Amino acid sequence: MHRPLRAPRLAPLTFAIALAAFGTVQLARAQSAPVAPTPAQVSPEVDRAYTQLMGAPAVQKLLEAVKADHERTVEELKTLTEIEAPPFKEQKRAEAFLARMKALGLTDARIDAEGNVVGLRKGTGHGPKLLVSAHLDTVFPAGTDVKVKERDGRLHAPGIADDTRGLSVLLSWLKVLNENKVQTQGDLLFVANVGEEELGNLRGMKAIFRDHLDIDGMVGLEPSPDGHVLVLGTASHRYEVSFKGPGGHSFGAFGQVPSAIHGMGRAIAKIAEVRTPSFPKTTFTVGTVGGGTSVNTIAPDARMAIDIRSDDMASLLEAEKKILTTLDEAVAEENRRWNVNTLSVSTKLIGDRPGGRTPTDSVIVEAAVRANSAFGHKTLLRGGSTDANVPISLGIPAIIVGGGGKSGGSHSTHEWIDVTDGWKGAQNSLVTVLGLVGVPGVSPALLPKRAARTK
Amino acid sequence: MHRPLRAPRLAPLTFAIALAAFGTVQLARAQSAPVAPTPAQVSPEVDRAYTQLMGAPAVQKLLEAVKADHERTVEELKTLTEIEAPPFKEQKRAEAFLARMKALGLTDARIDAEGNVVGLRKGTGHGPKLLVSAHLDTVFPAGTDVKVKERDGRLHAPGIADDTRGLSVLLSWLKVLNENKVQTQGDLLFVANVGEEELGNLRGMKAIFRDHLDIDGMVGLEPSPDGHVLVLGTASHRYEVSFKGPGGHSFGAFGQVPSAIHGMGRAIAKIAEVRTPSFPKTTFTVGTVGGGTSVNTIAPDARMAIDIRSDDMASLLEAEKKILTTLDEAVAEENRRWNVNTLSVSTKLIGDRPGGRTPTDSVIVEAAVRANSAFGHKTLLRGGSTDANVPISLGIPAIIVGGGGKSGGSHSTHEWIDVTDGWKGAQNSLVTVLGLVGVPGVSPALLPKRAARTK
Repeated sequence: MHRPLRAPRLAPLTFAIALAAFGTVQLARAQSAPVAPTPAQVSPEVDRAYTQLMGAPAVQKLLEAVKADHERTVEELKTLTEIEAPPFKEQKRAEAFLARMKALGLTDARIDAEGNVVGLRKGTGHGPKLLVSAHLDTVFPAGTDVKVKERDGRLHAPGIADDTRGLSVLLSWLKVLNENKVQTQGDLLFVANVGEEELGNLRGMKAIFRDHLDIDGMVGLEPSPDGHVLVLGTASHRYEVSFKGPGGHSFGAFGQVPSAIHGMGRAIAKIAEVRTPSFPKTTFTVGTVGGGTSVNTIAPDARMAIDIRSDDMASLLEAEKKILTTLDEAVAEENRRWNVNTLSVSTKLIGDRPGGRTPTDSVIVEAAVRANSAFGHKTLLRGGSTDANVPISLGIPAIIVGGGGKSGGSHSTHEWIDVTDGWKGAQNSLVTVLGLVGVPGVSPALLPKRAARTK
Repeated sequence: MHRPLRAPRLAPLTFAIALAAFGTVQLARAQSAPVAPTPAQVSPEVDRAYTQLMGAPAVQKLLEAVKADHERTVEELKTLTEIEAPPFKEQKRAEAFLARMKALGLTDARIDAEGNVVGLRKGTGHGPKLLVSAHLDTVFPAGTDVKVKERDGRLHAPGIADDTRGLSVLLSWLKVLNENKVQTQGDLLFVANVGEEELGNLRGMKAIFRDHLDIDGMVGLEPSPDGHVLVLGTASHRYEVSFKGPGGHSFGAFGQVPSAIHGMGRAIAKIAEVRTPSFPKTTFTVGTVGGGTSVNTIAPDARMAIDIRSDDMASLLEAEKKILTTLDEAVAEENRRWNVNTLSVSTKLIGDRPGGRTPTDSVIVEAAVRANSAFGHKTLLRGGSTDANVPISLGIPAIIVGGGGKSGGSHSTHEWIDVTDGWKGAQNSLVTVLGLVGVPGVSPALLPKRAARTK
């Protein structure tokens, strides 16, 4: 006697799994276009400050020291790259970074509860507190070959550009500032943080801003071409949604039980009709689905993953509300269809990145534009999802700039960096920072002090 | 810099796969309730014929021979069970069955192009042609342990009841009819067929009725309790549906490409609202879904499997039409939503079982009811999906009855049969058959001859 088919539906599911292994690599680089016009001119006080900095012999001497430190910095880059730092497993690299920070004079530096390396370089007083940071973590799992290979004038290794170059530039800054006894007016909070990539969900930077309520601004280092300044943090929320019902035989139980797949389908159909603004750009998709037991079983289980993004936090939350509302509506409809109440839905937040935009006319953006000009670069304003998302979402001025060098193959095992003239980018970004915190006797601190936040 | 999540969504897909392995076992037995009231009485000619048969010394002698053949039949059951017959790989068992048929006197028996063993036992002439059959195939894949184990008075082995018992009873009938020189008026077409289970989709029986246009009725043997008569063949069509689009980054490509998952969700939502009659019972479900690349990719691919069933062929086709229509509507809506035409859908028929109902007042049902009475059994009319679906869908009278013995654990490796007094069921079903084809000098052929079908 014939009885129901077992499972003729494995192919599509395994297919989805197979694709998942490489699917995002080719799609990884979103949003390379400018997100705002570059300011045509900056305010007189910003312009004046950078003119003073670039004309000051002490600063010129400091920049010479950055250049002179280049070879050592590259060696340190190799060393740090070869200490693997998988997501949630950054400790070994953090300890190595902490030891270097202490050796370079930040004797009070420490690793915080989240795993971030934190060291404060005090200013002369009454200035702003600027966070300068790079992230410890890479996207690569434990056991990935992180040995640095030199080939065709490039250094090849997973994570070498993103963001180990940033880490080594931070250490170089610390070294030259201390060795050249350059004091700043404002404080510099040096941070090598965890959890920037993927499921880290910015946990490191979230902890920094939770624990330090007096930060007035942030300049983060990430692999970027010279002149690029990130001012927009695309926010994202991701959900895993599970539908559960009793299940049953497709013929025998028909009419008596709801279908988890039908309930999910009803929700997806509603989500497909959600409307979001083009500006601020706000998007959504049901990226993956899975569910069911066999072709002839009313599905007891179905799951989907939803991605919601926006350049603006309020727009994200509005889209999210619409989407989450569809879930309950869909479940109610499926239950009503069969006059039951046995289908249910649950959601789990699996991705949570706040976001927003640092205003183009803010001092921190103008400072970067003016410093770039001083180094001969036209500024391009960019967006993305980085550690800067956290301060930006809190209304704290934040930008991400490059630390010098050209790179490619990010998030792949073919990642590389060309450090030729990389010291120029390290100089450029350091000058940006100096203008913001001010150098007594040279230029005033440009970054405004904020009222400290409350917990 | 953060780039998109790789694949946080594997869990649900693998979950669905894991479930698929055992999901249908507990749900396997649909439709054990009666599908129609048992006729309170049968027509006088049917009653008279079975009174004549049961009173005839030649028939009594034949039934004694069935009983006497019991032990040999059980040994043959064990032997045949241990020749594995996975779906689409029934050949070895078919050859063994053919050899036995020939040894028992059907020297013209052969294996047809589809793989069925077919042997005609000619009647005396001018009678109907009745197909008597059991199926060769089991649900078990090649390599399953099919060794018969005796325990607690039961024989344990995959496929031993379903349907190897039927095969051994067919051979026993052939032996006793020939050894006792019992002639029938009508022809008996002995068939051991392939492709009854699962993806076999009744291919064996479909070939029989395609090649033999003069069959007037069918009595099939399947594991059934004494007195059970299957008269209803639940029809089913199953589809695998694939949605394909270009895919893209959830943020970068938003607004430019359709989502395969969103398109599928739109279709499922429409399917969930399809209405079908309660009588003839008609059902549908989207049993499984899978699709997508990662949470942050607009899905380039989504698939689902749909099961549609009905006790009536026309109702099935009507439901199917409604369901297939939703697919094109859903794709058009998703394309319209983004002003594109890049989402498409394709369907593949993966299950095709025709069906219908043998009328309760037909001669073949009354014959079974009356024969059951003669053996002390009240008849229960049942439904299901068996080889009988094919003739029933063609309007040819067909029933499925048991061949004796009690069984359980069907379609699991725990399948068993208790053959104690199993010969009684073999007698009962043989008497049913004899009344239909008639025994010259004893009883007339009850089964009407039909006009031969045309190709």
